[in-house]
Amino acid sequence: MTTTRTETDSFGPLEVPSDKYWGAQTQRSIINFPIGWEKQPVPIIRALGIIKQAAAQVNMATGKLDPKLGNAMVQAAQEVAAGKFDDNFPLVVWQTGSGTQSNMNANEVISNRAIEILGGEKGSKKPVHPNDHVNMGQSSNDTFPTAMHVAIGMHARDVLIPGLEKLHKALVAKSEEFKDIIKIGRTHTQDATPLTLGQEFGGYAHQVAKGIERVKLALGDIYELAQGGTAVGTGLNTKKGWDVAIAAEIAKITDLPFVTAPNKFEALAAHDAMVFFSGALKTVAASLFKIANDMRLLGSGPRSGLGELILPENEPGSSIMPGKVNPTQAEALTMVCAHVMGNDAAVTFAGSQGHFELNVYNPMMSYNVLQSMQLLGDAAGSFTDNMVVGTQANIPRIDKLMKESLMLVTALAPTIGYDNATKVAKTAHKNGTTLREEAINLGLVDGETFDRVVRPEQMVGPED
Amino acid sequence: MTTTRTETDSFGPLEVPSDKYWGAQTQRSIINFPIGWEKQPVPIIRALGIIKQAAAQVNMATGKLDPKLGNAMVQAAQEVAAGKFDDNFPLVVWQTGSGTQSNMNANEVISNRAIEILGGEKGSKKPVHPNDHVNMGQSSNDTFPTAMHVAIGMHARDVLIPGLEKLHKALVAKSEEFKDIIKIGRTHTQDATPLTLGQEFGGYAHQVAKGIERVKLALGDIYELAQGGTAVGTGLNTKKGWDVAIAAEIAKITDLPFVTAPNKFEALAAHDAMVFFSGALKTVAASLFKIANDMRLLGSGPRSGLGELILPENEPGSSIMPGKVNPTQAEALTMVCAHVMGNDAAVTFAGSQGHFELNVYNPMMSYNVLQSMQLLGDAAGSFTDNMVVGTQANIPRIDKLMKESLMLVTALAPTIGYDNATKVAKTAHKNGTTLREEAINLGLVDGETFDRVVRPEQMVGPED
Amino acid sequence: MTTTRTETDSFGPLEVPSDKYWGAQTQRSIINFPIGWEKQPVPIIRALGIIKQAAAQVNMATGKLDPKLGNAMVQAAQEVAAGKFDDNFPLVVWQTGSGTQSNMNANEVISNRAIEILGGEKGSKKPVHPNDHVNMGQSSNDTFPTAMHVAIGMHARDVLIPGLEKLHKALVAKSEEFKDIIKIGRTHTQDATPLTLGQEFGGYAHQVAKGIERVKLALGDIYELAQGGTAVGTGLNTKKGWDVAIAAEIAKITDLPFVTAPNKFEALAAHDAMVFFSGALKTVAASLFKIANDMRLLGSGPRSGLGELILPENEPGSSIMPGKVNPTQAEALTMVCAHVMGNDAAVTFAGSQGHFELNVYNPMMSYNVLQSMQLLGDAAGSFTDNMVVGTQANIPRIDKLMKESLMLVTALAPTIGYDNATKVAKTAHKNGTTLREEAINLGLVDGETFDRVVRPEQMVGPED
Amino acid sequence: MTTTRTETDSFGPLEVPSDKYWGAQTQRSIINFPIGWEKQPVPIIRALGIIKQAAAQVNMATGKLDPKLGNAMVQAAQEVAAGKFDDNFPLVVWQTGSGTQSNMNANEVISNRAIEILGGEKGSKKPVHPNDHVNMGQSSNDTFPTAMHVAIGMHARDVLIPGLEKLHKALVAKSEEFKDIIKIGRTHTQDATPLTLGQEFGGYAHQVAKGIERVKLALGDIYELAQGGTAVGTGLNTKKGWDVAIAAEIAKITDLPFVTAPNKFEALAAHDAMVFFSGALKTVAASLFKIANDMRLLGSGPRSGLGELILPENEPGSSIMPGKVNPTQAEALTMVCAHVMGNDAAVTFAGSQGHFELNVYNPMMSYNVLQSMQLLGDAAGSFTDNMVVGTQANIPRIDKLMKESLMLVTALAPTIGYDNATKVAKTAHKNGTTLREEAINLGLVDGETFDRVVRPEQMVGPED
Repeated sequence: MTTTRTETDSFGPLEVPSDKYWGAQTQRSIINFPIGWEKQPVPIIRALGIIKQAAAQVNMATGKLDPKLGNAMVQAAQEVAAGKFDDNFPLVVWQTGSGTQSNMNANEVISNRAIEILGGEKGSKKPVHPNDHVNMGQSSNDTFPTAMHVAIGMHARDVLIPGLEKLHKALVAKSEEFKDIIKIGRTHTQDATPLTLGQEFGGYAHQVAKGIERVKLALGDIYELAQGGTAVGTGLNTKKGWDVAIAAEIAKITDLPFVTAPNKFEALAAHDAMVFFSGALKTVAASLFKIANDMRLLGSGPRSGLGELILPENEPGSSIMPGKVNPTQAEALTMVCAHVMGNDAAVTFAGSQGHFELNVYNPMMSYNVLQSMQLLGDAAGSFTDNMVVGTQANIPRIDKLMKESLMLVTALAPTIGYDNATKVAKTAHKNGTTLREEAINLGLVDGETFDRVVRPEQMVGPED
Repeated sequence: MTTTRTETDSFGPLEVPSDKYWGAQTQRSIINFPIGWEKQPVPIIRALGIIKQAAAQVNMATGKLDPKLGNAMVQAAQEVAAGKFDDNFPLVVWQTGSGTQSNMNANEVISNRAIEILGGEKGSKKPVHPNDHVNMGQSSNDTFPTAMHVAIGMHARDVLIPGLEKLHKALVAKSEEFKDIIKIGRTHTQDATPLTLGQEFGGYAHQVAKGIERVKLALGDIYELAQGGTAVGTGLNTKKGWDVAIAAEIAKITDLPFVTAPNKFEALAAHDAMVFFSGALKTVAASLFKIANDMRLLGSGPRSGLGELILPENEPGSSIMPGKVNPTQAEALTMVCAHVMGNDAAVTFAGSQGHFELNVYNPMMSYNVLQSMQLLGDAAGSFTDNMVVGTQANIPRIDKLMKESLMLVTALAPTIGYDNATKVAKTAHKNGTTLREEAINLGLVDGETFDRVVRPEQMVGPED
Repeated sequence: MTTTRTETDSFGPLEVPSDKYWGAQTQRSIINFPIGWEKQPVPIIRALGIIKQAAAQVNMATGKLDPKLGNAMVQAAQEVAAGKFDDNFPLVVWQTGSGTQSNMNANEVISNRAIEILGGEKGSKKPVHPNDHVNMGQSSNDTFPTAMHVAIGMHARDVLIPGLEKLHKALVAKSEEFKDIIKIGRTHTQDATPLTLGQEFGGYAHQVAKGIERVKLALGDIYELAQGGTAVGTGLNTKKGWDVAIAAEIAKITDLPFVTAPNKFEALAAHDAMVFFSGALKTVAASLFKIANDMRLLGSGPRSGLGELILPENEPGSSIMPGKVNPTQAEALTMVCAHVMGNDAAVTFAGSQGHFELNVYNPMMSYNVLQSMQLLGDAAGSFTDNMVVGTQANIPRIDKLMKESLMLVTALAPTIGYDNATKVAKTAHKNGTTLREEAINLGLVDGETFDRVVRPEQMVGPED
Repeated sequence: MTTTRTETDSFGPLEVPSDKYWGAQTQRSIINFPIGWEKQPVPIIRALGIIKQAAAQVNMATGKLDPKLGNAMVQAAQEVAAGKFDDNFPLVVWQTGSGTQSNMNANEVISNRAIEILGGEKGSKKPVHPNDHVNMGQSSNDTFPTAMHVAIGMHARDVLIPGLEKLHKALVAKSEEFKDIIKIGRTHTQDATPLTLGQEFGGYAHQVAKGIERVKLALGDIYELAQGGTAVGTGLNTKKGWDVAIAAEIAKITDLPFVTAPNKFEALAAHDAMVFFSGALKTVAASLFKIANDMRLLGSGPRSGLGELILPENEPGSSIMPGKVNPTQAEALTMVCAHVMGNDAAVTFAGSQGHFELNVYNPMMSYNVLQSMQLLGDAAGSFTDNMVVGTQANIPRIDKLMKESLMLVTALAPTIGYDNATKVAKTAHKNGTTLREEAINLGLVDGETFDRVVRPEQMVGPED
């Protein structure tokens, strides 16, 4: 039997587990929203802690908040930000679309914890009231969007970008390692002119480098905070300058360049910054999908595939086929990428659905964006450690495929013309012979010229 | 300090927590896939239990499996199906795309539990081997897709359809309750000709009825099971008839009309049945979105909105605006609907990406489809209980808006012609007067005729 | 210099080109919507002709419409349905969301053409008025959705299903042609156990067969017509039975099983039938994508790819690489499939956005669905004619790859156990030897047993 | 009867209409791809003209191309760029995924036109060969992606950004015009605290300003050109520096800051720049959707809606309801926005599907992106001209709704506390009275204080 205490809100009293710090509004949300298995993500909870700390500090500095209360609130908020109360945030994503209930969850936990610090009685709302003190100068309508941006800013720095940078570094290293391996190129999935394996991996590396750059570009809008808009964007019940001050405080706490949003009406009623940022994430997903898909195809085999890459063997691949090994990291990563594209579709839809002064798809949008970030960061890291780093070139195979290719004929085209070169390639294809044989047979070139012109090592870059 | 035991697979030994039943391949997956926070959903785990039970039964019946081992395996599998080992399934969604690791997780847990029942030593693989006995006649490539279909079939019956049916019933009841309330219609968001509030809710009810019908239509394909295809669809290492027998066994256990898939190559290499089923789910999402969005707009106010509906008040709506009450259930539901559309996009993408004999997006596809089902079912239920049931008509408001409407003029058009009726409406609009006044002033109709023709109660259906 | 005549509507007079039949409302739409390059699709225009014909016939039958006018209107409407006035429908998709302007375009063209037939003066609205006569008993709000359904029903029969059936037939033929060719299977893009090439193509054929079945299932809802709902679903300004009668007339004209929608409120305010139908289309797209993608990978080469299929050569493949031939039909088809998925996303979004009594995304939804149908039907046909029919098996290559495969070891597992079979495969892989050699070396089986058990031709189906 | 001439390619001779300039490869594509009704968009054709002009100029400058031929080619290419040969580009979007056939279409038209200028015979390929001369130093694989970027860069400047800037300017003007009109705010669609109508429109204006900024950010990647990568990214068959030189030439011709792409492998094999740019477009779509949707809801009525805005009346709104006027521009714009989101989904999918050295979804990706740009630019312009500019505030209505609002109580909360303020609002709501009455009745505040504190004009910004 759990013991309980009574908490109240304007709808009346409710029983809450004694060992928890949340209050009536949180409890009411638990009852009213028995939907799904997705809890409000931890980064949002931590961000709410940071905001409440910053708010208390600014409110003390401007003299609106008694320092005795304020200091206890700061301590309580810091504990929330540090993760000490994660298990006091039981609400699901599928609650009110403003995130009000999660904001109240933070207000209630911090109020009760501050009351406890000050020797009061949990649930009494004295001397620290969840609305009047913890939420002072705030509305859920500016606070929750601020929490979304703070959480995303931190998660980008701490999870997404490190994962992508790790992958980038590994791809650059492979590009260097493979720089002298000449291989057949493939366009339309068909044999084409050669390039080096290093160039191929260099293309992948460049995709990831650009992805990081795009994420950082899109973070620009994320660094703008809605806080200070209060209920509808006007800043009602705040003093002039509060918005600038709290953004500065949050920037200081997080060590990230947060600033106050230049237009609070836009910041509450739309979440275009989230939509654009999600657009950067899905672009990264498209890039990583291509890289992972290429690598598993180039590593297909071991005996009946393309077989140019030897992928690391990490685990048994089949419950029925003994000895089978599969490119499972590429599979996890491509599943993640497809999922991120779905998340982006949901975020974009939601972003368009604001009504008047508020968009009420906040928890869903932040859940999807944070999930996409977590998955891309984690999967990029796992893919790097468990697949990219251990990938080797199958040099004999690469060499054999490259040398047999008919598309080396392209080097001849400037000498004998496109139409004649076509004849050479088609004849060799039909007869199962070499380009050299047929070029000479057709009288288009002598052997010496052929050998001078058709040199794969000269085909992997422009002429000097 | 957790104590461990040693488990082995073809890659070597690994330490596993002593109190867990999983083996080396599960442990290896934990190590190799540190990606995200999404675990393999419980319905998949339970479905794997059901399949393993059915497999053991069929293998005993055909004499391939020693009943002593088989009966212990059946017991263990039933325990998995009953949820007794949910905490022995630690793997994330983002693993190998075939779901092999989760299939092996089931094989390992059941093997170790059966060994335990038979008095053996966990990790010894004796007398019950996870591959040779628990996975007998199976491959992950047919088993995991079968688990997906079994889980979806059951979740449709147990979660999704009950949620939708509850909502349907409540909407039908409201439609009946409101059948005599005549209100203004709105098209293009603008005033239009009248209808009854019952008709409006009847439209909603019909949408949900059709949604249930579409889900059931799409379940037809889900009832076809891949089991028996084994590695690539050929049924290698099974006896003829195994596929039919195990489908029958699964049908018996689940009390659902599962049958063997007519083409196992298609069933492994593509998941079109999932894509189509997801298409039904997103159609339901589009329907529910419309209903929830309408209801919150019709219930907007309390003083400055449309105000035709009085929505139940469930909780405080604002952390800053005292007394505010919001249509939070509609918000949760519309967030769910947008999310389901995103899931559908991810599922469709993944469904197109099979290569040769296998689609390797299984865990992601089933995660998304099951999440969509859970969310739609739960949210439909919560929306019903907490919003639809308590919704009341604001009759004075409805009456006032209806009577002032200029679009009642439409009833006059058959009498005086479209162009004259336009003149009446436009003049009344310009002058802020009534249609009756202007129709008479313009000499187009006398008062008596007007009163006979323009009768809202006659405008809510075709003429007899 | 184009000569013009004056046409009028309730907003005043407008000049219209003399040689055109449209009136003031069409002209006004041209002026007010200078958006994009996408015209209202022809199937919609033809469907409007059919509806107007049916309406005139029913209105004459019920005595509401003077047969002299009615018969001229029927003739004019039939001419529209036959395509004689396609160039009199200049409006773009991006107009009013109800399609009112295109409905009026039809009303105006038919009215003016009927006036002409009856010897009157175009633009006079006498004796045939576009609203009072041509639109009699109708609203755009029921007419345009009806046109959408009629157009889709006809286009499914005439374009989409024939394209898919042609592809299905060709795949079945290839499946039969290739039924004795045993080849390596591939799962996770890696070597797996064998199957026949006929089985592989049989899987593709089954996907298409199911696709046709799903399209037909989803057509069920499309056959329900909104006509008779008029402005808001009530049927105002119609007589009881009008809805049933006009649906029957449309069914007769089109020879398709159209019926009146059971709930007109739903039929105007939502377009769930379109969303569900679009869901069937994107499922077909996912199927075709997989087939086309597989075929180009199996046909990759000619010398450095998988090379199991020889694809027909249709055109030069490269402007720089002489002799290059590419799987261009697969490219066109996969582009179409990706595009159809995008269309589905747009349609689903739009389907959720109805407000109150009307969804105002009609022209966009029907444009996207009809485009998807046209593209899938055409591309399936072109892919069949130009790629599938001419595809040949590269038997020597297929045979070589199959025989070298290590995954034939799977046949040994029931005899020597999964763990031992793994050892055989891994040793052969490491040493670059054959399974037979290593199985004997490891003392797990003698040569005779090996040869009896490991027989590819016995691995392509279950044991008898 | 059309007369024809014979053109040839490596597949043999083909008859081409005598009055057309295209050659055998174009004709072959017409025959092989009878798919859909979507032609290669004009901006792509014009961009190909620009590229061919630039290529000829650089090739003459480096001495590779005889100036006699080169000057004729420059003239021909300029004619293509100027639109004189638009009707010589008959190919559909659904062709080879590299766009090779459209590149050859340009090569053939320019070659034949240059031959004509030089007095030769069309179809002779002498003295100007489509591959050897017009395509000199190029491959379709770098040329078509370059054409995509050039077309997008120009279309952004010429169509998209002007449309958005026009809208932005109009919204800023309305924001200024409405700056003193205090109105009720709405959050969760429910009554909230007041703001000015100018602030509301200021939020819209800010959304559009940010949208323009995001488009410009994303153009950064578009300005990087693939040209110089030739077949697989290596630059085979070019001289060092060719890539830089042609980008500079294109920059000069277009007056846009095009530069050569730093990594050509990435530029051919992936189109992440397109995916990211499309992400910016869908963000704009989400913004415009919100604005248009708000405006039609705020303008709903005329008698039974919110009625705060008076929208311009542009055309008759209904074929059955006389005098009805609808927000049709908002409908066109929201349809466009939904369509753009669908396009983005298709583009993202396609962007992930490159294989090895080439992504073969070029024509589809560029078709979708260009269509999105055209539609957003046009619809923003039309929405501005036909809706925003003529929108007026319904001041008496706005004033009435604002003054009745219960949410003015928020101004009291800092004085009497959140819980007491809640009591006041709830009591007034229950009794249908004013806040002032109930605040005094409940003894929480005197009339004087109430009047001092609750002043809407002080609620539209923070306290000084």
